[in-house]
Amino acid sequence: MKVKLASSYGFCFGVKRAIEIAEKYENSATMGPLIHNQNEIDRLKNDYNVGLYNNLTDVKPNDTVIIRTHGIPKNDLKDLRKKDAKVINATCPFVTTPQQIVKKMSAEKYSILIFGDEDHPEVKGVKSYGEDQDDVHVVLDIDELKNINFKYDKIATVAQTTKKKETYLEIVNNLILKNKEVRVFNTICDATFENQDAARELSKEVDVMVVIGGKNSSNTKQLHSICVENCIDSYLIENAKELDSTWFKNKHLCGITAGASTPDWIIQQVVNEIEKY
Amino acid sequence: MKVKLASSYGFCFGVKRAIEIAEKYENSATMGPLIHNQNEIDRLKNDYNVGLYNNLTDVKPNDTVIIRTHGIPKNDLKDLRKKDAKVINATCPFVTTPQQIVKKMSAEKYSILIFGDEDHPEVKGVKSYGEDQDDVHVVLDIDELKNINFKYDKIATVAQTTKKKETYLEIVNNLILKNKEVRVFNTICDATFENQDAARELSKEVDVMVVIGGKNSSNTKQLHSICVENCIDSYLIENAKELDSTWFKNKHLCGITAGASTPDWIIQQVVNEIEKY
Repeated sequence: MKVKLASSYGFCFGVKRAIEIAEKYENSATMGPLIHNQNEIDRLKNDYNVGLYNNLTDVKPNDTVIIRTHGIPKNDLKDLRKKDAKVINATCPFVTTPQQIVKKMSAEKYSILIFGDEDHPEVKGVKSYGEDQDDVHVVLDIDELKNINFKYDKIATVAQTTKKKETYLEIVNNLILKNKEVRVFNTICDATFENQDAARELSKEVDVMVVIGGKNSSNTKQLHSICVENCIDSYLIENAKELDSTWFKNKHLCGITAGASTPDWIIQQVVNEIEKY
Repeated sequence: MKVKLASSYGFCFGVKRAIEIAEKYENSATMGPLIHNQNEIDRLKNDYNVGLYNNLTDVKPNDTVIIRTHGIPKNDLKDLRKKDAKVINATCPFVTTPQQIVKKMSAEKYSILIFGDEDHPEVKGVKSYGEDQDDVHVVLDIDELKNINFKYDKIATVAQTTKKKETYLEIVNNLILKNKEVRVFNTICDATFENQDAARELSKEVDVMVVIGGKNSSNTKQLHSICVENCIDSYLIENAKELDSTWFKNKHLCGITAGASTPDWIIQQVVNEIEKY
């Protein structure tokens, strides 16, 4: 089987930075999973003894605690800083930006709309920076907009960094038609754009497509959904073990892309395996 | 011929208000045509002796000068106020809004984009309120955006009150994808929306459509362009004299709409005439 990699794929700036930070702090622990990739988290545990805390109560005195790329809610950070632990912030700077925008806009009396997944740690963190939590709204699509009552007719909006720009524009357009002022912050990150554009192009020219990434990773799921639009035989896997030889029967060219949290060593294993078919 | 009027058409709030102001000031003069309707301007001249000045130099001491609904450039207003004349401002409040937004946003160091027609008096007026005239840009569509170099990556945008919202959204979407922050002010006025929506609906159910309004009126031209999309036999006329009986041959139902500057008395004359066919 012939394999072609997307012109842009895999680790983004924020993930690379967070892993470099984690590798620097052996015997530390991350507050929530550092990135959305279990294999890489296992590697950090095995090679650097970087542990994982899921609750603030897990934190012990003199611990070194690393804040995950997606950030954590404002009050959790406040509580964490009160503990007798060393706090290392590996929040992606592109996530810190919407946090600060929500804080500022909400202080300036704008109603806040976040385009994203309410349950995603990044969104929980960004949302927590709103002054008036009753006027910070989270939607995934224009349908969900219908149920929202904004306090003001001035809306400020940010997007989860890994969301699809097309859906963000749909939501924004709807807001513009119904409100006096809409302050649109384009917080979808370039790396996501680039990986998405490259996946779109590649999925048009191949007859089977493999997307490698965490199944709970928002940006990986987006990549998969983009690929399916152009290549019905698009599969989402976390690592080479999940490959199925039947996918490649009677196929000629396999396209490969990977989410922003997928390390190169996993991608290489998948490529090697597919080339054997 | 059976005639059906659009559910919303004709005079908007700003035009009604300007005409009421002009009727109150007999023997005054307007600075530029008060509204975009020559027939109504003739009526004001005949019934109230309201004249027309085209240049500031026309203004004589003790004149009463009425500022047109579309507003005038900031410096013209300043010069006018210096003259020994009484100045009555009939600028539509919905036009004053984008003027003030451009003034404020440009002071806050946003690059300014105006969606509108560079040569339209309203746009000339709105543009004049920008602090840095080299960073106030006017476009009619997304193609024109390509040639623009904004000074900042923070853009504030307003629209000529009578423009099509769909085109505004296209332009705004393009800006959002390329800039960090886009502050969108929806300055297209409701009356325009309502007349446009009603024209769209009506033009779908009739087999001939007549749009009444000034041929240099932006909102009338928009109405006509919307009607043509649904009803190829859509005609733009200024008054009943321009009607042509051949338009109605083998037709059953004629839809009627009128621009925001078209007085009811002209619409009634057109309806009466068509009903005779």
